[in-house]
Formats: sequence, structure tokens, C-alpha cells
Amino acid sequence: MYHTSNPEPDTAIDRTVPEFPVAQLSDEDKYFNSYKPPSYLPRIEDEVRSFIEFHATTSGKPIALVTSGGTTVPLENNTVRFIDNFSAGTRGATSAENFLENGYAVIFLHREFSLLPYSRHYSHTTNCFLDYMTEANDKIEIKPNYAEKMLKVLRKYKDAKESRSLLLIPFTTVNQYLFTLKSVSELLHRVESKALFYLAAAVSDFFLPQSRTPQHKIQSQDGGGKLVVDLEQVPKFLSRLVENWAPSAMIISFKLETDDSILIKKAKTALQRYQHQLVIGNLLQTRKKEVVFVNSKGEEKWIRLTPEQVEENLEIESLIIPEVVQVHNQWINRK
Amino acid sequence: MYHTSNPEPDTAIDRTVPEFPVAQLSDEDKYFNSYKPPSYLPRIEDEVRSFIEFHATTSGKPIALVTSGGTTVPLENNTVRFIDNFSAGTRGATSAENFLENGYAVIFLHREFSLLPYSRHYSHTTNCFLDYMTEANDKIEIKPNYAEKMLKVLRKYKDAKESRSLLLIPFTTVNQYLFTLKSVSELLHRVESKALFYLAAAVSDFFLPQSRTPQHKIQSQDGGGKLVVDLEQVPKFLSRLVENWAPSAMIISFKLETDDSILIKKAKTALQRYQHQLVIGNLLQTRKKEVVFVNSKGEEKWIRLTPEQVEENLEIESLIIPEVVQVHNQWINRK
Repeated sequence: MYHTSNPEPDTAIDRTVPEFPVAQLSDEDKYFNSYKPPSYLPRIEDEVRSFIEFHATTSGKPIALVTSGGTTVPLENNTVRFIDNFSAGTRGATSAENFLENGYAVIFLHREFSLLPYSRHYSHTTNCFLDYMTEANDKIEIKPNYAEKMLKVLRKYKDAKESRSLLLIPFTTVNQYLFTLKSVSELLHRVESKALFYLAAAVSDFFLPQSRTPQHKIQSQDGGGKLVVDLEQVPKFLSRLVENWAPSAMIISFKLETDDSILIKKAKTALQRYQHQLVIGNLLQTRKKEVVFVNSKGEEKWIRLTPEQVEENLEIESLIIPEVVQVHNQWINRK
Repeated sequence: MYHTSNPEPDTAIDRTVPEFPVAQLSDEDKYFNSYKPPSYLPRIEDEVRSFIEFHATTSGKPIALVTSGGTTVPLENNTVRFIDNFSAGTRGATSAENFLENGYAVIFLHREFSLLPYSRHYSHTTNCFLDYMTEANDKIEIKPNYAEKMLKVLRKYKDAKESRSLLLIPFTTVNQYLFTLKSVSELLHRVESKALFYLAAAVSDFFLPQSRTPQHKIQSQDGGGKLVVDLEQVPKFLSRLVENWAPSAMIISFKLETDDSILIKKAKTALQRYQHQLVIGNLLQTRKKEVVFVNSKGEEKWIRLTPEQVEENLEIESLIIPEVVQVHNQWINRK
């Protein structure tokens, strides 16, 4: 089956865009003072607060905030059009399942309608929902060849729900993402070092300042129209997260590249800039087969599926997460 | 439940963008000569050709091409980022079901992963796939409260598949959409006036010419970076469709507005510009409750759900499609 929605690796990352300076406190203040939080944010805060409180006082589980999927940038005055970031959410959704299986509670901050833990096995495929169903004796049922695996997935999903271990929080725009991340981060300070940030979302680099109207400058040209979109960079909030919002938590960010010769260097630069604990580097072409952990001491550790594991469709997140858990345990114990 | 992905009606359509001239033969030639067709297009053409042939020679059904969902504009050299058009595909997917129930064969040209006929009842909702399932006696089954309705939907879906009446064709980018639309249109000429075009997709107005590199002009400003995206208008192909690709078919386009005082005028302008048969006008705020048919004679006919029908969740497409079928029958018979 052909897929129409995958970008080509050789053109997927634009290297003409330079690195931006780290957001300073003033940038952060400026952003959150200039833009409005989403109107539903208090409801999310209530949900997150009671989720964290439950695990802090009752389950005792460590809490992973997993971000997943791409943020959008609405072209203002025209929210029918928006700039989007390519990401199905596979890394985030698969990782969330593995955190749950490793004893974590998971706040899954995800792009609405992107892949979700567990249901991901049955969505965004070429199969539609109804292709899993059949009719027998005037009743609808799951096709026998799917039933066994689906029951296993359902049990895990129900476990996660019944133990209150999985909280799904959606976003669409980069503004919603930033405000929600800030709120959740501040609330996660409650569990200090037992909080783990696993930032796998594809966050927009650029946004359209609300103040800039009219932002669509139409210029007559060859008798036709032309649209010029003028975007500002999104402040780089990772430092603020480390220093202010959740200073005791462990923070892991991702670095996706297409050129293996610069992957490690970019990961190390990110660690120096943001002073967080771990970057997981991966190449677009091989991201489902190998990743590299780069820590703040500059150590590198590759995690790779063996050819046999690739053959049997093992997911690399089942190797990544136990490694992450180990690093997080060290982080908790050194505090 | 809050949704993060719906645009606000009062800012959803940008009226600072003027109307563009109709594409001329030269614009069409220029576009299709300048851009590459998607590599999988021959496979789609084979599928569509044999689908049309089957219905032309065996079933005798009229064929509706339903386009649905939004097209994307990749920001070249950087297909991780793209401009998207807001559309879940509800109108298209619901209409496709109603065409099938009214005896049509349907080619469903849709944005990949947008809503599909039948499965739409169970996707893109706040429920995830697994929320419909339960376990009983060590077996997975559909929850009893969903089973009856789901069986009805499954039967219709299986009918459509077994009678070969539904062909799903995906697109993602506006370039894929345009090339695929052209191919399908030319192939549909086979059934002449029995072909119906029902163009409900949200097609991008602007695209980024491949020739324009580097298209990301970063300008230093306040010590930060800035992204300027310079877009050209997408040629307006509807006239070409009417005149060249499928001259005997009946063509229906949609006009979505937010201001009811200009809806009819915009619909009439479109009919004059493109010389096709019918515009279905609708307002973003009320599009699920009322639409207006405007035909080439300038006649207007409103189709509205009664308050009782709204109450019982009747879908307006179940009123729209029988009206469309009637108009299409007149079109076939006058030929």
C-alpha cells in the first residue's frame, strides 16, 4: 500500500535554519503575558492535579510526562489554514505503553487525534475500524484472527485505566502546547525527582504573533495573488523548564536528524544549552531501529535492535524505556 | 469534553485575500508540466479504471467522485513542516454513505487518515477504539450497548465492499490532490453524464513553487530568527474540469462562508466563473443544520433540518444527497 503522508528523509530537515538563542526569563514572561491561555486550561489543571495527588499519596508510582505528536501554528485570522509539523505520534504512544508496563503513571500530552497508547495498534492504519469486525449468528464480533492479540491489548488498556495510571491531555496549537506544558510542569513539582519529562512531541519552531495584522500581505504579481507569511521563532523553553517550572525533575529531550555526522554534536549542544539530563538522538531513516543516549557528561550509548529483533517486529521503545527508567532511578537516588 | 482543534467562526475565513482569476489552459499546462505526479499515480489509475469499467459494464450504477478533507502544502526542503487546511472530512464521509445508499458507486478521494464512510462513526471521537470493547469469558467482544448500531454500520460497510461500490483513494498534498483529480476526472469521462463530481475537499489556495529555493529566508531581527514563507496561488482548476477533463459530467462545488450576507453572492460568482451546475453553500456556524443549493439559473433552494430532526441527530446529508440525485437525474436525462 502506498502512503501519501510521509516526508522524504533527504529533504525533511532544513539546515538553512540556524540555531536560536535560549529563551531568557524575559522571553518566557513576554510570551505568557502576550498570549492567552486556552480557555479549557483550568479543567486540565484540575485533572492533572488530582492525578498527581493520587499517585503522590496513594500509588507511589513515579510519573512520566510524555509529549507526543506535532503542534500547529494557525495562520491568524484564518484558522482554516495552519502550519503543521509532521508526526504521527508513534514514538510517544509506544513509549507511553512501555512506561506503564514499567510501573509508571503517565500523563500523555498529545496532539488531538494522533496515535494513543494501545489504540494505536488499530488506528491510522490502512485497515479501517470495521475491517476488524465480522458478523456471526446475527451478532457483531471481532474477527477470530485478530481476537487474541486484541484481547491482550485491551487488558493492558483496562489495567491502565482502572489503576488510574494513564491521563490523556490533548493539544493542537503550539500555544495550547506551551501553556499546558507550563501548567503540568509546575504541578509535577509536587513529586519532585519522581517526575520524568519525556519530550517526544514535534514542536513548531515558528509562530505567527497575534499582534501582526494584517499578516497576509497580498501583492499583485503576474495578475495573480501571493501569500506572504511572516513568522517569529517560538521561544526555546527547555531551559525555563529545567530552572523554574520543575527544577527537581529529570528531563529528556529528543533530537531528530537526517545526517548521522552531526547527530551527536547536536545532542551535546542541546545539553549544554539547556542543562538538562539526557538527549535521545535518532535519525529519521533509522529511528525505529536505533537511538543514541547522550548524557550531560558527554557519554554516548547506542541502543539497537538486533536483526532478529527487527525480524520479529520488536519495538525499540521496549529497549529504550527500561534504560530510561534506570537513569531515572539513579537521578531519584542521588537527590 | 473540550476539543482543541476547531477554528473559531469569527476568524476562520480571511477576507483580505481577494478572488483569483480563473485558471486558463496555459495555467493548467504550466502546472502539470512544472510539477511531478506522485509516483504511485499509475497504481491509482489502474484501480480507478477497473472500478469505472465494472460499473459501466456490469452494475450500471452512476458514479460519484466525492472529495473530502483538507490538502497540505509542504514547505519545501522541509516536509516536516507543512501548511494544512482545517477539515475533518465529516461532510464528505457522510455524503459518501448517503450516495451509496442512494444506489451510487463512490470514488472517495480523501485526505489520508481523515474520516471515512462508515468507520467515521467510530474514529476521531473522544472514545478510543478499545472503549468499544469488553472482555467476557476470556474473549474480547463489542460492548452490548454499542453492538446493535455497530452491526448495522458493519452490514452497510460490507455491502459497499462486496458490491465493489466504494473505492478509497488517498491524498495528502495539494499536488497529489490535483494530479489525482485530473486522472480520475479523465477516466470518469468513460461514463459521461452518469459521472457526478461532489467536491467537498478543502483545497489549499496557495502553494510553494518547487523552483523557489531557498524559500526560507532567515533574517536576523532582535537577535532572533524569522521565517518568511512566500506562497503562490494554486491555479483554479474547476473550469478546466468542466471544459476539458470531464465535459459531460455534472459538477457540484461547495462554498463555505462565515458571513450569511455574502454566501449567495459568492455562490453565484463561482457558478459564473466556472460554468458548472451547482454550488452548495453553507455557513461554518450552521453547516450541519442548513445548506443552500444555488444552480446555474440563479435559483436558490434551502435545505434545513427541522428542530425535531436536529433533536434526533438526523444528519443533513441524508436530505442533501436525495436532492442532489434528483438534480443529477435531470442532468442525465437532458443529455
